[in-house]
Amino acid sequence: MNKITETLLRIVSEYDGDFKGAFNIREDGLCAGRQSTDNIKIESKKDKPGLEIHIKPGTKGEKVFIPACVTRGNIDDLVYNDFFVGEGADVTIIAGCGVHSDDEEEARHNGIHRFFLEKGAHVLYTEKHVGTGAGTGAKRIDPVTEVNLAEDASLEMDTVQIRGVDSTVRKTTGTLAARAKLVVRERIMTDGYETAQTDFDVTLAGEDSGADLVSRSVARGHSHQIFNSCIRGENRCTGHSECDAILADEGTVSAAPALEASHVDAELIHEAAIGKIAGEQILKLRTLGLTEEEAEERIISGFLK
Amino acid sequence: MNKITETLLRIVSEYDGDFKGAFNIREDGLCAGRQSTDNIKIESKKDKPGLEIHIKPGTKGEKVFIPACVTRGNIDDLVYNDFFVGEGADVTIIAGCGVHSDDEEEARHNGIHRFFLEKGAHVLYTEKHVGTGAGTGAKRIDPVTEVNLAEDASLEMDTVQIRGVDSTVRKTTGTLAARAKLVVRERIMTDGYETAQTDFDVTLAGEDSGADLVSRSVARGHSHQIFNSCIRGENRCTGHSECDAILADEGTVSAAPALEASHVDAELIHEAAIGKIAGEQILKLRTLGLTEEEAEERIISGFLK
Repeated sequence: MNKITETLLRIVSEYDGDFKGAFNIREDGLCAGRQSTDNIKIESKKDKPGLEIHIKPGTKGEKVFIPACVTRGNIDDLVYNDFFVGEGADVTIIAGCGVHSDDEEEARHNGIHRFFLEKGAHVLYTEKHVGTGAGTGAKRIDPVTEVNLAEDASLEMDTVQIRGVDSTVRKTTGTLAARAKLVVRERIMTDGYETAQTDFDVTLAGEDSGADLVSRSVARGHSHQIFNSCIRGENRCTGHSECDAILADEGTVSAAPALEASHVDAELIHEAAIGKIAGEQILKLRTLGLTEEEAEERIISGFLK
Repeated sequence: MNKITETLLRIVSEYDGDFKGAFNIREDGLCAGRQSTDNIKIESKKDKPGLEIHIKPGTKGEKVFIPACVTRGNIDDLVYNDFFVGEGADVTIIAGCGVHSDDEEEARHNGIHRFFLEKGAHVLYTEKHVGTGAGTGAKRIDPVTEVNLAEDASLEMDTVQIRGVDSTVRKTTGTLAARAKLVVRERIMTDGYETAQTDFDVTLAGEDSGADLVSRSVARGHSHQIFNSCIRGENRCTGHSECDAILADEGTVSAAPALEASHVDAELIHEAAIGKIAGEQILKLRTLGLTEEEAEERIISGFLK
């Protein structure tokens, strides 16, 4: 793999010259390294670009790394990855994405991920996105995630867009069977003229299923963010969504988190708050000796942590 | 006026055989009584059905009653009422609506109200909606309200749909100048196969303008309610919307309260909660000697008060 990929891997995944576990490294649309384990098989799809990842029932404590990097302009990488997680497995999937452009051409990664968690499986899914390089070509990352949770399965998604992604549209849909749980923690930072859109659509189909979606965002410069979510309660279930956004400079944010209760025992809640950092918070940190800029940085990094 | 109108007036307005203030009674699309005062002129529109209501600058403490009743099926009443409220006036406008049908034909009232509040004017606007009669014809009330608030003007809207309205679509739009305030308290009860939709769209255009929208609803039987709101912060402003819904029987509710902050000093918040009455609340009242039904009634009436 090339030097840029190596740098991106260190930012978006736990790469330190090596991965401890199963992995597949995608570089500019091609495979730059792959390793399966006894319990986790990674194979190329036959019909289209992408992977089939099979995790054996009962697999515990293993990690799967599937970073994808785009290291130059004029690449529009589209990949379909399917994760089949066997009954009772408990694993961590690390799916960072870095997009780099030093030229005027657009660099884009569009990862379409489908998760099929069997009964009682648990997955911690982490995803870091970053754009780098001094090129004027737009750096775009457009993830599409489809979550299918069988009875008692649970998925925790911990996603973060660090910086430098000019445009992102993030679509996540989920369908939950009885007692399944989906927890999402999303943090997005935009600056300059970047735009970010998040769409969640989660259906709580099974009895006692639950979803908890929390999105935190900071819009700086002239950036614009849009947050849409819809939680559909079709059974006895609990759903919560929260969208908190900090505005700075000329940043703007729209939030539209919908709830649809079509069952009398659905309990759905949402909250959203958009605003600047409170003046007294800045003041407090300035009395401790920080400049206004340092105080703002401190507050923002705490908010996105 | 007929007996049904008289009964409806007692339910939806402060009618006790008479009105204390300016009034216009609309019955089945016609005028059944009108009175202006020195400060409040009520006149028929020249170009379409409806009224022009002019309230002189500085008018204080007066009331205007503009109830509208539909007393039989096969009436589709459409009315345009414009309220011009002079600088510094402080008045109460009472706009109840009752729709009655004893037959199989639909009875509908569609009131399109526009409010133009001059600088510093304050209006308390109350509106009660009810459907009555044993007819199978659908009873519909579809109010459209357009609010224009000049600098320092404020409008408090206190609206309630008591019962018996088969279908309602309630659209309210508002544009607020500097320091103007809009406060909305909406309460809607639906039962049977009734449907109710609320759409708010409020633009906080002026510096330090503010909106506070609170909707409480109870969906019983097989009824369905939809709550949509959008608060647009285009300046330094504060916006809050809240939608709380209680589900009973097979009632269903969707809520989609959007926020759009296009100014860095816009502070926008929303909250929504949909669910059944908590079991422990019922239990508490039952230990005080109430039946389960009585306990539920008590809680719902407190919630909608």
